[in-house]
Amino acid sequence: MALFSKDIETFDDLFVHTLRDIYYAEKQLVKAIPKLADKATDADLKEGLLDHLEETKGHVVRLEQVFDMHGEEPRGVDCPAIDGIIKEADDIMGDVDDKEVLDAAIIAAAQAAEHYEITRYGTLIAWAKQLGRQDVASVLAETLEEEKAADHKLTALAETEVNVEAAT
Amino acid sequence: MALFSKDIETFDDLFVHTLRDIYYAEKQLVKAIPKLADKATDADLKEGLLDHLEETKGHVVRLEQVFDMHGEEPRGVDCPAIDGIIKEADDIMGDVDDKEVLDAAIIAAAQAAEHYEITRYGTLIAWAKQLGRQDVASVLAETLEEEKAADHKLTALAETEVNVEAAT
Repeated sequence: MALFSKDIETFDDLFVHTLRDIYYAEKQLVKAIPKLADKATDADLKEGLLDHLEETKGHVVRLEQVFDMHGEEPRGVDCPAIDGIIKEADDIMGDVDDKEVLDAAIIAAAQAAEHYEITRYGTLIAWAKQLGRQDVASVLAETLEEEKAADHKLTALAETEVNVEAAT
Repeated sequence: MALFSKDIETFDDLFVHTLRDIYYAEKQLVKAIPKLADKATDADLKEGLLDHLEETKGHVVRLEQVFDMHGEEPRGVDCPAIDGIIKEADDIMGDVDDKEVLDAAIIAAAQAAEHYEITRYGTLIAWAKQLGRQDVASVLAETLEEEKAADHKLTALAETEVNVEAAT
């Protein structure tokens, strides 16, 4: 999260920097999720990913609202973490042919992205509260709840949808 | 997680590949956590990181046990996700001087690493159960509980230890 950050002096600077980190991450996921959905075989998985794509587009808009509330122009900073998570997803999708195994790999990749978002939103909410911005924390908390719900849906799919017998 | 994976054909292959991914990640964290602890100012944060370093060394040993239970030699595969998370941590530590702000950034970086581990162990446990290996799932679940506990401790530190007044 720091290629363009040379001037993090205050706690507020750190908050804005991390906002830019997750803004970049959400925008990268808007590009990456359709590729996962395209490769998914299971109908529930495909539908779940496409539903979450729409939510993710909403998260970008919500972050722009938070930038505005904080008096900042929306902009991203490079985020090697989400780039690495997406690279792993791309790599693994290129290495699996079996449809059942591929669905399991896609669920795992999507959950890694969700958990990155969950940790960053959790951090931002804690910091917003400490900065006295309960209003900002409340907006970010809406997204956090959607990320957690998406992760729970993926866990349910991981536990029920993969036909292990067919895939071993 | 895929630079060296060209042959993921079965669900079992995917399980072993992901085991190698988290094995690499844990070993990278054994190298990275002391740097975070070294930079941390808050005594509780420093102590918590050093405690978790010892746990992390135990997780490496536990993974070697799981490889053995599964009839595989322990080995890692490149994991761009954890590399990205550690790179972000390194970058941000180089960009912050203020000790209070740095502690907050270190907590956030450590939580990003914890969440990566939480998602991977969650996936591995679900897959181990589907492969009929409750014994393997139980060993992995011990680590997952320690990762979740470490994350909760970091959340508590994030909410209480940062002296926002001093850092803004």
